[in-house]
Amino acid sequence: MTTQQDIASHAPLASLSRDELATFLAAKQEEYAALRQRGLKLDLTRGKPSSAQLDLSDRLLSLPTTTKDRSGADVRNYGGLEGLAELREIFAELLWVERDQVVCGGNSSLTMMHDTLVHLLLHGGPDSPRPWVQEDSVTFVCPVPGYDRHFSMLANFGIEMVTVPMNEDGPDVAAVEALVRDDPSVKGIWIVPTYANPSGAVCSQEVAAALAGMPAAAADFRIFWDNAYAFHHLTEEEAKSADVLTLAAASGNPNRPIMFASTSKITFAGAGVAVLAASAENKAWFLKHLSMGSIGPDKVNHLRHVEFFGSADGVREHMRRHRDIIGPKFAAVDEALTTALGGLGVAEWTRPSGGYFVNLDVLDGTATRVVALAKDAGIALTPAGSSFPLAKDPRDRNIRLAPTFPVLDEVETAMAGVATCVALAAADRLSAGR
Amino acid sequence: MTTQQDIASHAPLASLSRDELATFLAAKQEEYAALRQRGLKLDLTRGKPSSAQLDLSDRLLSLPTTTKDRSGADVRNYGGLEGLAELREIFAELLWVERDQVVCGGNSSLTMMHDTLVHLLLHGGPDSPRPWVQEDSVTFVCPVPGYDRHFSMLANFGIEMVTVPMNEDGPDVAAVEALVRDDPSVKGIWIVPTYANPSGAVCSQEVAAALAGMPAAAADFRIFWDNAYAFHHLTEEEAKSADVLTLAAASGNPNRPIMFASTSKITFAGAGVAVLAASAENKAWFLKHLSMGSIGPDKVNHLRHVEFFGSADGVREHMRRHRDIIGPKFAAVDEALTTALGGLGVAEWTRPSGGYFVNLDVLDGTATRVVALAKDAGIALTPAGSSFPLAKDPRDRNIRLAPTFPVLDEVETAMAGVATCVALAAADRLSAGR
Repeated sequence: MTTQQDIASHAPLASLSRDELATFLAAKQEEYAALRQRGLKLDLTRGKPSSAQLDLSDRLLSLPTTTKDRSGADVRNYGGLEGLAELREIFAELLWVERDQVVCGGNSSLTMMHDTLVHLLLHGGPDSPRPWVQEDSVTFVCPVPGYDRHFSMLANFGIEMVTVPMNEDGPDVAAVEALVRDDPSVKGIWIVPTYANPSGAVCSQEVAAALAGMPAAAADFRIFWDNAYAFHHLTEEEAKSADVLTLAAASGNPNRPIMFASTSKITFAGAGVAVLAASAENKAWFLKHLSMGSIGPDKVNHLRHVEFFGSADGVREHMRRHRDIIGPKFAAVDEALTTALGGLGVAEWTRPSGGYFVNLDVLDGTATRVVALAKDAGIALTPAGSSFPLAKDPRDRNIRLAPTFPVLDEVETAMAGVATCVALAAADRLSAGR
Repeated sequence: MTTQQDIASHAPLASLSRDELATFLAAKQEEYAALRQRGLKLDLTRGKPSSAQLDLSDRLLSLPTTTKDRSGADVRNYGGLEGLAELREIFAELLWVERDQVVCGGNSSLTMMHDTLVHLLLHGGPDSPRPWVQEDSVTFVCPVPGYDRHFSMLANFGIEMVTVPMNEDGPDVAAVEALVRDDPSVKGIWIVPTYANPSGAVCSQEVAAALAGMPAAAADFRIFWDNAYAFHHLTEEEAKSADVLTLAAASGNPNRPIMFASTSKITFAGAGVAVLAASAENKAWFLKHLSMGSIGPDKVNHLRHVEFFGSADGVREHMRRHRDIIGPKFAAVDEALTTALGGLGVAEWTRPSGGYFVNLDVLDGTATRVVALAKDAGIALTPAGSSFPLAKDPRDRNIRLAPTFPVLDEVETAMAGVATCVALAAADRLSAGR
């Protein structure tokens, strides 16, 4: 991840004279009028795989070829709460954990996170003094920008959220430590450690170790380690996720982290397999409560995935085919923004080396306007502020771009349009300030 | 459903003289010793479909043949929280409800029940004064004998359970009414309305209407209507489930019932599709909270099932093929029990016209002994008392038999063995009382 600030093909907007700025604004207004007339209908809102990506996994539709797992159990029948051993092995290797730490579930890691939070609220964890619903208040630390669904889940449960900056190497450790050290109501943090949504940041070993080992007033402090993009590399320099389970165990906090991942952006977004990995105690706790509402996961889908991948290497190879499809889309985003905005000094954006998003920071106070302008021109963007708790971006500057779903051509068109909106909103704002 | 008390091939055990009883006991001890020597390994514990039943659905393994649903949406991708419209239509027809009332979910209706209960606990329903966790206590009415997983789920949440008798036409209405009328802490009842687990009872229209309309002190009283065996007929006289949603709406209690069903015992037990049906308000409430932990169900599996069934009639036809396989097993249970125990006056059992279980009531105080004797002879039965809250059968007489999973030959062998254990335990007990 590098931020865009070195290229200066245009003069900084703030350095223009009043007349120059007026001319620039008029040009952008004209550009925008032309954009609106095109009647586009493009969507950059969500991190969804494209049809071409989904096609990569179509062999799944005629799998599995057998109905028995390695142990001889009939995958069509009930049972096997923790999931197929052979699938758990594949994920253990990919996530640098042990097979015994892994549970394979249904089609959504978000559901496993939700379930984990529900169990903590209603029962408390193995090391909780009481169920979290019996606490006066529960607070989570939220690195920002972050994933909107994490925040809305917390908000729906009435859990307080306090933000810390998400740096290039992960959450700001000093800020997290200060919040967690003395306040036992601070019970957790949500982290997307690899190619974070939306910043693309990769949590370093050092940051992971610090978070795993830091003193926490709450004995049952939890790190929700949502490794959704662990294998989703955009370059040949493949980031390695830290093994936070081992780091935490080594620090005497084995139950602190719970790791999540899924194949949602590997095979079928709606019909993949989700994974949880945790300490032996956390895993037993999770399975105990899971067993109250489940007799077992869809093991046919587990076997389908085992046959499809073959091995952890099969997953890695498969991810390279994804990279070939989406890599050019990320390059197109960067090119469109650079061409239109480079040097203007009104926008910064990421060039992520993995994941599903480009984080675009526009001129303070203009993000909402940019999204509205784009919408009027037929380009749907994630609502401004979505990457902040309660959708409140204090600087109104953050926009999450999701370029994977449209075809390349559409990404180019949409991003040229977005760049026009960014420049127009900035010029408008700067003009108003004169 | 009829109970076995009319056939009298043996003299009642209680009418025997001391010597006759001693002779009978000795004969049964000998029979049991021989049984143990056979070294059986048979399992009648759980209501699981057999391999032959699962084979009926093997065409699913190479479905779906397309990746678009009727609306043109790509089933492989995210979204579609309430499930495929065409699958919801099939279930609406089968359950005599409206498509708009139906949500199709993942592989387990138990999970949908668990989620519903979790949402009630943490948020309350649309008509709740407060989340249920904020009540001093919450009590559920539990018709007995009933389904062990319902009871363990309630127990795990600390919900109190009070029992009422399960009659042949459903729960004892007067008993339910008396509990519900004045006590606002009584928040719900769990009912398996069609071919109940384990009694085989079918809830009549009258009982359903009474429960739907009865006065309840709790404005948010809920009927968990677990129609797990709605289509699981064992005879050509197919029971019709009451449309409890319409009955409740007509009584001014639209939000009282929530209906559940699944294809777990129709297609693949571990890889089927679950269904919830409810009032518009309840459905919106359920989906709102569901959306916090799910972006959508496995729509590929939904489409797989739509292609497999074709229509509601396709489901009905498919169920007849199940009946052909399991009908003889239920007949074998009845025959083995009648042959060995008929007229002895030490056991009653059901001849269900649908569902997955035979309810066996043995001599009071001997159920635990029977299960232990069977276990020592290599025949696994559901633990005695399982059909009661906290596994406490006050009369220690109830045993749930699940004959679907073993092949017919094994059912015959196992049931002859069980009958021996029942007779032996009864003779022992009666002898001790002399």
